Amino acid sequence: MNINIINGPNLNLLGKREPEQYGDKPFGSYLDFLRMTYPLVNFGYFHSNVEGEIINELHRIGFTADGIILNAGGYTHTSVAISDAIAAIETPVIEVHITNILGREDYRKTSLIASNCRGTISGFGLDSYRLAVEAFIMEKKNK
Amino acid sequence: MNINIINGPNLNLLGKREPEQYGDKPFGSYLDFLRMTYPLVNFGYFHSNVEGEIINELHRIGFTADGIILNAGGYTHTSVAISDAIAAIETPVIEVHITNILGREDYRKTSLIASNCRGTISGFGLDSYRLAVEAFIMEKKNK
Amino acid sequence: MNINIINGPNLNLLGKREPEQYGDKPFGSYLDFLRMTYPLVNFGYFHSNVEGEIINELHRIGFTADGIILNAGGYTHTSVAISDAIAAIETPVIEVHITNILGREDYRKTSLIASNCRGTISGFGLDSYRLAVEAFIMEKKNK
Amino acid sequence: MNINIINGPNLNLLGKREPEQYGDKPFGSYLDFLRMTYPLVNFGYFHSNVEGEIINELHRIGFTADGIILNAGGYTHTSVAISDAIAAIETPVIEVHITNILGREDYRKTSLIASNCRGTISGFGLDSYRLAVEAFIMEKKNK
Amino acid sequence: MNINIINGPNLNLLGKREPEQYGDKPFGSYLDFLRMTYPLVNFGYFHSNVEGEIINELHRIGFTADGIILNAGGYTHTSVAISDAIAAIETPVIEVHITNILGREDYRKTSLIASNCRGTISGFGLDSYRLAVEAFIMEKKNK
Amino acid sequence: MNINIINGPNLNLLGKREPEQYGDKPFGSYLDFLRMTYPLVNFGYFHSNVEGEIINELHRIGFTADGIILNAGGYTHTSVAISDAIAAIETPVIEVHITNILGREDYRKTSLIASNCRGTISGFGLDSYRLAVEAFIMEKKNK
Amino acid sequence: MNINIINGPNLNLLGKREPEQYGDKPFGSYLDFLRMTYPLVNFGYFHSNVEGEIINELHRIGFTADGIILNAGGYTHTSVAISDAIAAIETPVIEVHITNILGREDYRKTSLIASNCRGTISGFGLDSYRLAVEAFIMEKKNK
Amino acid sequence: MNINIINGPNLNLLGKREPEQYGDKPFGSYLDFLRMTYPLVNFGYFHSNVEGEIINELHRIGFTADGIILNAGGYTHTSVAISDAIAAIETPVIEVHITNILGREDYRKTSLIASNCRGTISGFGLDSYRLAVEAFIMEKKNK
Amino acid sequence: MNINIINGPNLNLLGKREPEQYGDKPFGSYLDFLRMTYPLVNFGYFHSNVEGEIINELHRIGFTADGIILNAGGYTHTSVAISDAIAAIETPVIEVHITNILGREDYRKTSLIASNCRGTISGFGLDSYRLAVEAFIMEKKNK
Amino acid sequence: MNINIINGPNLNLLGKREPEQYGDKPFGSYLDFLRMTYPLVNFGYFHSNVEGEIINELHRIGFTADGIILNAGGYTHTSVAISDAIAAIETPVIEVHITNILGREDYRKTSLIASNCRGTISGFGLDSYRLAVEAFIMEKKNK
Amino acid sequence: MNINIINGPNLNLLGKREPEQYGDKPFGSYLDFLRMTYPLVNFGYFHSNVEGEIINELHRIGFTADGIILNAGGYTHTSVAISDAIAAIETPVIEVHITNILGREDYRKTSLIASNCRGTISGFGLDSYRLAVEAFIMEKKNK
Amino acid sequence: MNINIINGPNLNLLGKREPEQYGDKPFGSYLDFLRMTYPLVNFGYFHSNVEGEIINELHRIGFTADGIILNAGGYTHTSVAISDAIAAIETPVIEVHITNILGREDYRKTSLIASNCRGTISGFGLDSYRLAVEAFIMEKKNK
Repeated sequence: MNINIINGPNLNLLGKREPEQYGDKPFGSYLDFLRMTYPLVNFGYFHSNVEGEIINELHRIGFTADGIILNAGGYTHTSVAISDAIAAIETPVIEVHITNILGREDYRKTSLIASNCRGTISGFGLDSYRLAVEAFIMEKKNK
Repeated sequence: MNINIINGPNLNLLGKREPEQYGDKPFGSYLDFLRMTYPLVNFGYFHSNVEGEIINELHRIGFTADGIILNAGGYTHTSVAISDAIAAIETPVIEVHITNILGREDYRKTSLIASNCRGTISGFGLDSYRLAVEAFIMEKKNK
Repeated sequence: MNINIINGPNLNLLGKREPEQYGDKPFGSYLDFLRMTYPLVNFGYFHSNVEGEIINELHRIGFTADGIILNAGGYTHTSVAISDAIAAIETPVIEVHITNILGREDYRKTSLIASNCRGTISGFGLDSYRLAVEAFIMEKKNK
Repeated sequence: MNINIINGPNLNLLGKREPEQYGDKPFGSYLDFLRMTYPLVNFGYFHSNVEGEIINELHRIGFTADGIILNAGGYTHTSVAISDAIAAIETPVIEVHITNILGREDYRKTSLIASNCRGTISGFGLDSYRLAVEAFIMEKKNK
Repeated sequence: MNINIINGPNLNLLGKREPEQYGDKPFGSYLDFLRMTYPLVNFGYFHSNVEGEIINELHRIGFTADGIILNAGGYTHTSVAISDAIAAIETPVIEVHITNILGREDYRKTSLIASNCRGTISGFGLDSYRLAVEAFIMEKKNK
Repeated sequence: MNINIINGPNLNLLGKREPEQYGDKPFGSYLDFLRMTYPLVNFGYFHSNVEGEIINELHRIGFTADGIILNAGGYTHTSVAISDAIAAIETPVIEVHITNILGREDYRKTSLIASNCRGTISGFGLDSYRLAVEAFIMEKKNK
Repeated sequence: MNINIINGPNLNLLGKREPEQYGDKPFGSYLDFLRMTYPLVNFGYFHSNVEGEIINELHRIGFTADGIILNAGGYTHTSVAISDAIAAIETPVIEVHITNILGREDYRKTSLIASNCRGTISGFGLDSYRLAVEAFIMEKKNK
Repeated sequence: MNINIINGPNLNLLGKREPEQYGDKPFGSYLDFLRMTYPLVNFGYFHSNVEGEIINELHRIGFTADGIILNAGGYTHTSVAISDAIAAIETPVIEVHITNILGREDYRKTSLIASNCRGTISGFGLDSYRLAVEAFIMEKKNK
Repeated sequence: MNINIINGPNLNLLGKREPEQYGDKPFGSYLDFLRMTYPLVNFGYFHSNVEGEIINELHRIGFTADGIILNAGGYTHTSVAISDAIAAIETPVIEVHITNILGREDYRKTSLIASNCRGTISGFGLDSYRLAVEAFIMEKKNK
Repeated sequence: MNINIINGPNLNLLGKREPEQYGDKPFGSYLDFLRMTYPLVNFGYFHSNVEGEIINELHRIGFTADGIILNAGGYTHTSVAISDAIAAIETPVIEVHITNILGREDYRKTSLIASNCRGTISGFGLDSYRLAVEAFIMEKKNK
Repeated sequence: MNINIINGPNLNLLGKREPEQYGDKPFGSYLDFLRMTYPLVNFGYFHSNVEGEIINELHRIGFTADGIILNAGGYTHTSVAISDAIAAIETPVIEVHITNILGREDYRKTSLIASNCRGTISGFGLDSYRLAVEAFIMEKKNK
Repeated sequence: MNINIINGPNLNLLGKREPEQYGDKPFGSYLDFLRMTYPLVNFGYFHSNVEGEIINELHRIGFTADGIILNAGGYTHTSVAISDAIAAIETPVIEVHITNILGREDYRKTSLIASNCRGTISGFGLDSYRLAVEAFIMEKKNK
């Protein structure tokens, strides 16, 4: 099973940026943990701070991967273009957030991409990514 | 570990109500599945269509349970009182939804309760409840 | 033919509450009048001031009655949960109001339940209920 | 008893226009049905697509008719001038709609004319007109 | 000096319609009074309830008259088309209202035509028209 | 003199819930203090987390008590139905709040019930209730 | 007949400030012109840039003068207090503006004071004041 | 191929009205140019300043013409009734504007009729009409 | 104990202005009543119609008085500057209103100053001031 | 004559993405068709999913090309920066859309770039591009 | 070179009011520092809490000074009248703020005066005033 | 002392783009001027039209530079992602604008990044950058 994780703007600073809000572990070590926990899943990983490169990546993998876990960061709230990209591809996408966006600043309460995603998981720290993996596995089992 | 599931208005009709939207399985059989999957978790269950009875239940269990999984249904979008109840108790609450509320009608896009919840999981059908259980287990492990 | 009338909050005070606005006859005597006028219709009646009990009643009768006449009172403008209940049941529901809600205070101009109802009749005093009965009878005749 | 029906823009296309939404019967044959059903009522009929001509007609009959049934079509949502006309005349006006305007597109949810009308009936197809006739008859009986 | 008065919807009912709000004198007798008071002014008069006919009249006289006094009634608040017509002609237009529209219902507080008018006079009953005549005379004197 | 205190959702947790915000004394002991302070006043007390039961209580006592002190908690901001109930009864109602709702989160700044209440007292901790008692006593003296 | 003119903020700069917008004549010479034109009217005059002093003046003259002509300048759009003062006094007030405020920037389109004024005259340059005098004279004649 | 052009309010003033904005050629000569350029197309032409007459014309030709080019002028932004008429007929309609409405005043940025039109062309002066003809021809070719 | 009362715009007209709304007693005689009722309290009094003088007074007494009772009148809804002044001083301020501002016109429902005040009392006529005194006394007792 | 076409995000998926909405032909073959149809026009072509690269391209060609046809996709509704780029260059830009954006979701109804474009063509499928070419050719002819 | 500094409401409390927000130095000593740093500049200084007196001062110096540095405090967000005064005078005005108003409460994010000012400097503590002096000096140098 | 200047979209066109608005000097020569004026400051410079590359640069220098001067151009108003980047790094950022954004089009009045910046300077042409340098120097001196 192929699952691709795409991280958007500022997520490369994880572990460094506002640790009391976003935690103090870099994403790399968390990715190792995921790979150990789910040895049967083949994880792809991509990060970019550039909106258009996230679209490129969605296009590149969006017709072959089994699932995409997308943390679009700040673009979540402003990008019609990424939302269109998700609608345009075939692979289902799960939207994840480290903090609970519905309970933060007003401009973070709207997600332009949610309506094209399979589901949303927010507020569990890095564990949000693992829960998304769990959701893809269960979905596959139920088919 | 004690986890209590609280279901709000209309969720008693699960399996009967708009099955193409909400699935065709009643909640009872799903609860059996959860209990079998997590034999070490002690699940409590409560359902009511009455806003104030949900508050009563939150008060009753909210100082002793280890976690609460709340699907507040239509009250999610209108109840300041339930949100206050969550803030008033000590047990952490995870908000779950069967459909992806961020991607539906406008009046369903806002959650009055999210800001007082640990996290939100929406859009995975009944599997949203299991993902919440996973989140509580992981949280315990990390302590 | 089975028609159930459900009256929401404060309608038990009819005849007593702001008579220049809502009339001075209690609902009981009006119900007698309806039963005499339509001897072939079997009228059920339910009143509650509790939002969730109205939902319970909608669930109880919503798969067997031929028609439901609902005056949701103040819940008309605030209850996503009652609106969901109407969507979830099979019996068609007609929304009635004693006064013309479209022509009153701003917060009374929106109806959260209308989109799930067969139709709306407002502004004719108690006669709004009789007109709803007429509508159900005509609908049956046309089938 | 004199009741005048006024139909606004596009209602001359009834039976031809979007039949799944508005039904497939032209208004003429429905008028015949009304006249047969209520032989004691004298029905006047007027149709125009022109906002100002509807106002002219309201002025012409608005001091002598016993009741006016008005389906103002698209002008319902935009015409302050028709609303002023209704306020200016003496005959009571009932607002009718074939579909349930409260449950459709946002710009159809507001009625500028409702605050000057006796009541509103919407969502019962052509039967909305008959229910309005019933309302006028009952009102007369109660005087 | 040629001044044309244009009255919009429902102003033909003056003296009949809501007299406590709009006064009890028909416009005809007031026009006589104006003609006696200003014998050197040549008054034209036009009334229509039809938005487009008001535009037609504005076009017809808008390149030759010295001044136009327009009471657009309910179209004041909704007609982009009349506003465009005023912008398109050469004769200056003064907007008059019998009641003080800035102090009434919210939807009467905006005037779509004001930005293309020379000035606005509202709230003086029929005397609003005379004040407009005074304004045109003074303007001519100052040239 | 009969004064009834009605407490709405979550106020049963007083002394337990967010003490830095709402104080650390349970309401029972405060009620004792009130009864000692005003021996001539006969205090009734009712608490419910259920919106409709608050309406029931308002109906039950609203035609005989001399005054009602209502802390509607979270329902203050969302309940048209409670506001209607206050309008429907005869006993005057004073709205109280422990914290100053006008100075908190945006959704707490509006009170749907205030327009039907005698007055509003907010921000004085539990002393808000005593001030309401004082207001009723003064009102009686002035009659 | 006593008429008092009150000019608000920045109107002392008339003739100096943005002359293409507000004209190039100081108000003093215009006042002379008014006094010559209406020898039977006794004109009082007051100017202040201070909101509260305008209120003081309204109080001082508002129970004895026959009419007040108020150009509240920028306070027109922001002062609830001046509006309250107009409501509190007995002398009728006419609101005047040199430019047509309904056709300028958005924040100039609303007048907080209009609802308490007899009428509004705007857009005729200084002639707006004379038209207000005319209105008061006519009103007196009609009594 | 039959194409009908319908021009709405104020377009009869073309060449006369604000020429720097709308150009200085009357529509008649432009129509000749279109007829010469497309000898195989049969052009119908209709102009009215009256909203309802535009609806009448849409009804008259809307079941036989091959295409309608509509410049609804100021009604574009305010007429639900014209929009309903377009939805009710069978001939496809292309919305044209001489200036680029999306880039002008706010109230000109919304088009109530666009959602029922085949497409929109705005901002090319009179050439907008020719581009609409081109669009209909291409559409026919592709069938 | 030193308590200062500050009255804002138009409150000097008390007893004269709209008596059915604000009562018919001048504030002076009420102040006497307060001084007799609370002989141990030393009352200061200040009134001004000028926003900035209210700020001056708040500065003058705001570091020495024990409590300030402020009825800011119309400035309640518009003055960021008074609100800043309250935040800047040390003496606690209680906001009072004679009528219940939460239940009046929309623009009176917001208080810019409440978030910096100890509490709000509105709707009890002049008795609102006495209740504020009571609140300060109780606060002192509890320290 | 040099015309450059710039396609924004997701337009590389044309033919693949939601074909019922956007058609099933890739853009390459359509470009061939354009080049054959207009042999005298020299077409440049650029595509990017990256907002900033579209700006770079606008800068690169915006001082030499004769015309630019821009389909900015999702950036149409969110990019102030692209709009600024269009304002900054000299070549005129025509905005095109495959679907009729004025008639789709609300957030697609606003175009931030339209105010800086020569004109807008939307809703004609790929033919929107050809109509833009036609517009540039006519404009050149008229110079 | 003559530069006048005008400080608005509450700035006289500087050093005393919320020192963690506004600093702990009174403005007087800062003014000394400015005078020492720029010996060639002649600094005028004015403070008032009264909106209208700030307007008076702007009028007094606004035709002779070389530059005005204005910190309008809370009036920044509410005063159309001060904004008009700035537009009416000839001396250029720079708006300064001690804290970064764009990043604070919502009602502090709008400046009614900015559109008439040369520029805005906010967020640098008292150093904002010096930066404004620097800006005036540079502007003079560039002439 | 290391200060980095980051210029966002379209600022590479400086001197070329709308010179009456933005001036006619390219940024390069201005940078030379800055380096000569402040020989002790080490200036870094970066420009990109790509949102994500600006984020990359902020990350690259944001933990070592002493200060960042950011002109985010059009992204100022739309980029949550850049705002997050500023919050995530350690170097303080000053926001600069050449024109006074608070006084321009509505969509330019909001800054999404201001709340994470040290301060804002706008409206002084290129001198805004120098003022920012001055602010950093003063801040260092005060430490």
